[in-house]
Amino acid sequence: MEKLQCDVLIIGGGPAGSVCAMTAKMNFPDKEVVVVREFEHQMVPCAIPYVFSDTLGSTENNLVSCGPAKTYGIKTLVGRVNSINPEEKTARMDDREIHFDKLVLATGSNPFVHPSLEHSLKIEGVFTVPKNVAYVDKMQAYLKGKKRIVVVGTGFIGIEMAMEFAESGKDVTVIGGSRHILKNSFDPEISIRAEKIMLDAGVSYIGEDRVTRIIDEDGHVTGVQLKSGKTVETEAVVLATGYKANTELAEDARMKFGHYGGIWVDEYMRTENHDIFAVGDCAMRRHFITKEQSKIMLASTSSAEGRIAGSSLYGIKYLKHFSGTIAIFSTVVGDVAFSSAGVTYTEAINGNADVVQSAFEGSNRHPANMPGARKQYVKLIAMRNGGQIVGGQIIGGKESGEMINMIGLMIENEMTVYQVMTMQVSTQPKLTASPPMYPIVVAATMLAQEISKGGQTA
Amino acid sequence: MEKLQCDVLIIGGGPAGSVCAMTAKMNFPDKEVVVVREFEHQMVPCAIPYVFSDTLGSTENNLVSCGPAKTYGIKTLVGRVNSINPEEKTARMDDREIHFDKLVLATGSNPFVHPSLEHSLKIEGVFTVPKNVAYVDKMQAYLKGKKRIVVVGTGFIGIEMAMEFAESGKDVTVIGGSRHILKNSFDPEISIRAEKIMLDAGVSYIGEDRVTRIIDEDGHVTGVQLKSGKTVETEAVVLATGYKANTELAEDARMKFGHYGGIWVDEYMRTENHDIFAVGDCAMRRHFITKEQSKIMLASTSSAEGRIAGSSLYGIKYLKHFSGTIAIFSTVVGDVAFSSAGVTYTEAINGNADVVQSAFEGSNRHPANMPGARKQYVKLIAMRNGGQIVGGQIIGGKESGEMINMIGLMIENEMTVYQVMTMQVSTQPKLTASPPMYPIVVAATMLAQEISKGGQTA
Repeated sequence: MEKLQCDVLIIGGGPAGSVCAMTAKMNFPDKEVVVVREFEHQMVPCAIPYVFSDTLGSTENNLVSCGPAKTYGIKTLVGRVNSINPEEKTARMDDREIHFDKLVLATGSNPFVHPSLEHSLKIEGVFTVPKNVAYVDKMQAYLKGKKRIVVVGTGFIGIEMAMEFAESGKDVTVIGGSRHILKNSFDPEISIRAEKIMLDAGVSYIGEDRVTRIIDEDGHVTGVQLKSGKTVETEAVVLATGYKANTELAEDARMKFGHYGGIWVDEYMRTENHDIFAVGDCAMRRHFITKEQSKIMLASTSSAEGRIAGSSLYGIKYLKHFSGTIAIFSTVVGDVAFSSAGVTYTEAINGNADVVQSAFEGSNRHPANMPGARKQYVKLIAMRNGGQIVGGQIIGGKESGEMINMIGLMIENEMTVYQVMTMQVSTQPKLTASPPMYPIVVAATMLAQEISKGGQTA
Repeated sequence: MEKLQCDVLIIGGGPAGSVCAMTAKMNFPDKEVVVVREFEHQMVPCAIPYVFSDTLGSTENNLVSCGPAKTYGIKTLVGRVNSINPEEKTARMDDREIHFDKLVLATGSNPFVHPSLEHSLKIEGVFTVPKNVAYVDKMQAYLKGKKRIVVVGTGFIGIEMAMEFAESGKDVTVIGGSRHILKNSFDPEISIRAEKIMLDAGVSYIGEDRVTRIIDEDGHVTGVQLKSGKTVETEAVVLATGYKANTELAEDARMKFGHYGGIWVDEYMRTENHDIFAVGDCAMRRHFITKEQSKIMLASTSSAEGRIAGSSLYGIKYLKHFSGTIAIFSTVVGDVAFSSAGVTYTEAINGNADVVQSAFEGSNRHPANMPGARKQYVKLIAMRNGGQIVGGQIIGGKESGEMINMIGLMIENEMTVYQVMTMQVSTQPKLTASPPMYPIVVAATMLAQEISKGGQTA
């Protein structure tokens, strides 16, 4: 058994681990940083759906190598860590033992499948969506010749996969378990607009029903049985029903866990043992409003955590600014972008938060005659008392992906509708809405009116 | 002479005036709001260049009517106000006298022409770029048959006009008076990239020289004489050399003015007389860092001012958040977007501000194999002590127009590089850069390193 010594050991080379490694090296250039990752090449997780259509066409076009790490002076080992020993500060691989000073767990997440369907994973033609090149290659090869596909799950991976399959000429049925798609990120009136695009693309949607059994013949999938008694024939099933934290190493080391199974961490991503950090999908997260634990899993959140851990390894170097995790993400359905940040109105009301909402629809170019102009819908959600922006949803062109980041910033800064009303924005005919009708500002102005009307709490 | 009585009289129907009217009506629905504007239809000012190419093709496609105002319950009068009397609270038009309780001057700006060239405006083929439909129609008709055009001025209107002319097959020379184009908004290394696109589009550029005389033959322009002695033959000259506040009414009423000729206003857009407000290009502006007076003229700034005045007419209803004007704008050169917010590094250093800068270039999609992916360059400028973001510049795709608004928000919120380093952003393969390499965050991280290195002030 080879023995290796390093200052910082990072287990996992996904967004959280790789950002953490770079940040550590930038902040502590004299420290030796070692990353252990399972594969030489890893996929960009959120681009996996695009491998299944002409958009990317193959996993080959979706690979990130460990090459860049080298240019930062980061050492990469390809392989698996089988166990960690926090007391001895060691990690064991098949062929070596690594002694570390600081350890970062960035072991990510694996597909979650409902226990009642777990045994069906061995049926041929039943897939999950793991971040594993060989698996995705096999899945892609299998699906190539098939016409009918059932996608289970209406989160963004499920809907993106369904749309890419439809674009490749397949006959797709999405089975929801919820009345509307993307329900964790959008209020119903917005989900309905995404749904319409999906239906217009030829995808069938079964919302208020759920898969109770996967039917096979001689080990090949032939259909799914629904709770309603209905069955849907299919040649393949893709279970896009979420992910769960991959925490085997931490479990074996008897570390502390959060409510949803993530490794317990404080706001600086430190575990109870301050020499051990956890970042990304394997770590516990907190909701930015309720401060309760949250199930959100997003590469962008993971990257932010990687940066916090990477700069906090040897003490609190930078004061943590924002407390908790915003759900902030975008997807594209057809050629329309749907973006969301913070809480939805539904989520806020269900969580007993006293919020108001307003929405404005304008054009993403000005004048509206500009070539390529399309509708741009912005909804904002704010606290009734104080007026702080706590959520936003956008439907529009590709610019939505960055507009939602503005709303994210407003949330992080606890900006009020009164500040947003008079914010200074750049507007340009070929790029944005018009100055008088810039939708985020108009929606904020409407919210201020809504608040000043007073009246009863919802 | 007809007599008319109203609560709020707004003179001018451009972005500042129209936003002010809408905001006033939203905040004070019982007040009668009257807008006097010169024309039934007005152009979107920043889209004027696009009238000269197939992008819009004619002024007809660039008109905003006073129709929307009506739906808000705002009364519009088409005509000119010839004088105002602050003591009597009256304004006179040709055929009527209006008595107001509150007055908002939103009279905008007119093209600025250097005094030495003013007399040349009567030469046929010499134009400015006023916000006047009839003028632009005439200009467009004149230029249609012409091949050679000289554009004087390298601000965004000048460069946008030049590019649209070039796209229409004309032989265009831009004459600068400055080594690089767009110098007020971009540092040289960025201007040079815009310049290259312009040159590649066939536009000639004469930077370090300036027009001293416009040459004519029988009253028709034939060329321009430069300071260097050189002459450039041309069939038309477009003077895009900035704008000056249109303040005749305020001058006649002996109101107080700012350093650059704008009507003096406080942060709530009130003149010395608190019943009279001024908004938009006709009003004085302050620089957000130095708090000195500023020459910035932008429709988006005007809109923000219109909102402040509109809600402050009957007292300070909302506390003003941000103090001063950020220069925040975008332009498109070829199909590349160039955006800027706050101060450039050059401007900061010239103004003796102790700043640091960092830039990062990545891709605007992830992985970089995504269709339509292109380079995305982000530069940030921050105070060395404290790390507050005070400026940013972006080169990229159409998303830049909204990314710069995020940087604007960072400036308005006095966010530090330490906060930006760990901000939560949304990333999506079809819409944005990758989570680990999101350029604004990477540039902030680089700035934090730059600052911590310490060393001497520039």
